[in-house]
Amino acid sequence: MDAAEFRRRGKEMVDYVADYLENIEKRPVYPDLEPGYLRSLIPNEAPLEPESYEDIIKDVERVIMPGVTHWHSPYFFAYFPAASSYPAMVADMLCGAIGCIGFSWAASPACTELETVMLDWLGKMLQLPECFIAGTHGRGGGVIQGTASEATLISLLAARCKAVRRVQTINAKKSESEILSKLVAYTSDQAHSSVERAALIGAVMMRKVPTDNRYAVRREMLKKMVEEDKAAGLIPFYQCLTAAVTVVTVKLETQETRHFGVSNICMFQFCATLGTTPSCAFDHLTELGPLCNEENMWMHIDAAYAGSAFICPEFRPLLNGVEFADSFNFNPHKWLLVNFDCSAMWVKERADIIGHWQIPLGRRFRSLKMWFVFRMYGLKGLQAHIRKQVALAKEFESLVRADKRFEICAEVVLGLVCFRLKGSNELNQELLKRITKSREIHLVPCQLSGRFVLRFAICARTTESHHIQQAWQHITQLTFELLQEASH
Amino acid sequence: MDAAEFRRRGKEMVDYVADYLENIEKRPVYPDLEPGYLRSLIPNEAPLEPESYEDIIKDVERVIMPGVTHWHSPYFFAYFPAASSYPAMVADMLCGAIGCIGFSWAASPACTELETVMLDWLGKMLQLPECFIAGTHGRGGGVIQGTASEATLISLLAARCKAVRRVQTINAKKSESEILSKLVAYTSDQAHSSVERAALIGAVMMRKVPTDNRYAVRREMLKKMVEEDKAAGLIPFYQCLTAAVTVVTVKLETQETRHFGVSNICMFQFCATLGTTPSCAFDHLTELGPLCNEENMWMHIDAAYAGSAFICPEFRPLLNGVEFADSFNFNPHKWLLVNFDCSAMWVKERADIIGHWQIPLGRRFRSLKMWFVFRMYGLKGLQAHIRKQVALAKEFESLVRADKRFEICAEVVLGLVCFRLKGSNELNQELLKRITKSREIHLVPCQLSGRFVLRFAICARTTESHHIQQAWQHITQLTFELLQEASH
Repeated sequence: MDAAEFRRRGKEMVDYVADYLENIEKRPVYPDLEPGYLRSLIPNEAPLEPESYEDIIKDVERVIMPGVTHWHSPYFFAYFPAASSYPAMVADMLCGAIGCIGFSWAASPACTELETVMLDWLGKMLQLPECFIAGTHGRGGGVIQGTASEATLISLLAARCKAVRRVQTINAKKSESEILSKLVAYTSDQAHSSVERAALIGAVMMRKVPTDNRYAVRREMLKKMVEEDKAAGLIPFYQCLTAAVTVVTVKLETQETRHFGVSNICMFQFCATLGTTPSCAFDHLTELGPLCNEENMWMHIDAAYAGSAFICPEFRPLLNGVEFADSFNFNPHKWLLVNFDCSAMWVKERADIIGHWQIPLGRRFRSLKMWFVFRMYGLKGLQAHIRKQVALAKEFESLVRADKRFEICAEVVLGLVCFRLKGSNELNQELLKRITKSREIHLVPCQLSGRFVLRFAICARTTESHHIQQAWQHITQLTFELLQEASH
Repeated sequence: MDAAEFRRRGKEMVDYVADYLENIEKRPVYPDLEPGYLRSLIPNEAPLEPESYEDIIKDVERVIMPGVTHWHSPYFFAYFPAASSYPAMVADMLCGAIGCIGFSWAASPACTELETVMLDWLGKMLQLPECFIAGTHGRGGGVIQGTASEATLISLLAARCKAVRRVQTINAKKSESEILSKLVAYTSDQAHSSVERAALIGAVMMRKVPTDNRYAVRREMLKKMVEEDKAAGLIPFYQCLTAAVTVVTVKLETQETRHFGVSNICMFQFCATLGTTPSCAFDHLTELGPLCNEENMWMHIDAAYAGSAFICPEFRPLLNGVEFADSFNFNPHKWLLVNFDCSAMWVKERADIIGHWQIPLGRRFRSLKMWFVFRMYGLKGLQAHIRKQVALAKEFESLVRADKRFEICAEVVLGLVCFRLKGSNELNQELLKRITKSREIHLVPCQLSGRFVLRFAICARTTESHHIQQAWQHITQLTFELLQEASH
């Protein structure tokens, strides 16, 4: 394919993409096939000779699309939103063409510099304290990571490094491995599995702090554990707070994917704690922050999903206390219209992480996506997007509340509604099974205090009120059938 | 931007991209500006109201392009190749539109399944032993990682986990932290910094094995260290061989980037060991492999750059011994025309890494790029690409050898030529300074046995013989001026 053919094929692909997204709601949102479907549809080996573009593009509908879960369908209410917008896609084309590997300033100055400034723009949209903004001559600043998991790992490793140095300053004789064996990190017993995984990778102990009846960590409880651990000769050094996350645990499928092989690594055997926000989960940043600071513990805040909402003044109070944090992270690639991957991380002291802790060396020119999106939407446009989706969640909540057969299971603060049929877990499992089988809408479940709960997350940018109404009508129709059968 | 505007703007961007790449050689390959240039060119904050697309696209030439190091210019001979091809770009547009987050099979079956099959295709192109191929009912298979650094880290963590289990099987009383403090990994004293960093992250000891006079680790030397360590009560568990890498260390700029902030994390203070290939670096896989197997040490082979060449039968012998490895990795995003990021990793035992060790949870649909590229080029087209670039390196080598003022500093096996002016390091530094300043071609230096050496890497897909001739003419012209001045 030369430049001339690219001009033709690229433009055809632009039309294909626009057609796909304009008509996505006509496709079944969830695929109807068995694991292993794809291997039999394509050859076992790469072709020796070049194939024609026509043959390849035909295979997109034949091979790929039947196996796609359509995350951007307005009937997709599963997991969490995956940001998608046209300006981000156009910017990504430019990113691909420039194709620089930004591992140093000289490797492409614009790549490094635009990223720093975009993280400042975004930090200001969130009203982060000045100490996190690079352009204010402070010692902090922002960086793009691939995912929130990487940000958590990096913050834990930075904290570990700092703790070892601190202990050795006091007692130069202590070996690093001796210190490591004493380090202890803390997180909520409701935290995302990636926090535990970071501790596992970093080979440090992690303790889970029990939460109160609103699933929040409280100062007294953390204080008590820290005191106990210190008395036992341990060294508290790190606390990860997953703001905007509650007990919405999605158990992903396990066995059926296992035989697929290593491309499933880490795609199962974990429980993703995906976020809604009982506001209580935030109330205590101001309570825990000073304790972390007193105890010389690194405080990391992970607001992967909810972070985007903080650009709206009415949600910003949820982040109060961030001034105590050493690092803060959220994912514009979830809810801020910047296509995956783009996880924004800020630290108070650049020196703590510089030279160490970004896992990959290479970097794409990801800040271009942010630049295009922020400018094409403007802050007001982005705020309107968040508010619209929160309103849609509220609309769905009202529909549920108006139906006495159902109950709402967690306070609806942002874009996620947790609900269930009043009745047994089995009943709700059966309802979800029928919803999944019908393939008109897509939901995933969660566990809330041992109860099987349905999660309804507002995900696609194009979801409108009539999709919500349609989804509810569909759910109540299936419920009607289910309850009728159950009563026979 | 709605679908209609995307159709228009997307197509304009296709033309912009094609124009950019068709005319890239007219641009200075390396930017001429001072660190910090960008901040003053754009506002300090995101706009409140949406801006017009015209304003944004105008800023691409005003703000971005002056700060771009053009990695795809045929005059770019620095670092290593960053793969770029039109089919990959078209596939990436599709990937962006589907926009699934492939963290589980159900989250998008096609994403997981195509990846597994594409890694099989690629593994077969490389003639990997069957035990690495998922579709052969074996226990191995492939997975896409972001970068080779991640693959190294993951293999080290998997090896660590396995070693702890093995020791605890023999002695259940040993605590994990006690075992960790005894684990020792090995790598060549010439290895990439990411290997050391993986050990640092994983909190295990890493010993550097001295190399012979051709920069290769030899069996006797490794054996000796392993025996010593065992005698001292340590537990050898991991060996990373960086195939196709020699002592071509690029010291990246440091101070001038530091004030930029955290988007430089890990972008400096490291020495990237970028690859050429004295064939000796491979000769000994068959020698070291059995030793690793006997000693229950995980053997990881990192062939980030050179791996692509192994699709050509004439280079495949360099990989002999891979059958002893537990994991193997190389970067199609370097030399196999699949745009960044796409690092291919295979393991012999999926069970060793499943459920554990991929750093990010989310994943893009990256296998689409491989599918498009492998089919549009065919194996023959890809082989032709590798062979052409190797031939260009040989052509440059001949030019250097024909000029008595210069010397070749390492055997030219693949696409990299290491050369220098006979004379002092200072003389060569001055030559490079002038080359960089002229901005007609772009090179970076390396250290070889304490000598300052110029690296000439064949990088861009569009580099032709006349670019090589032109580059050499330019270098000799600057050399002529330099030597004349020096003789005065």
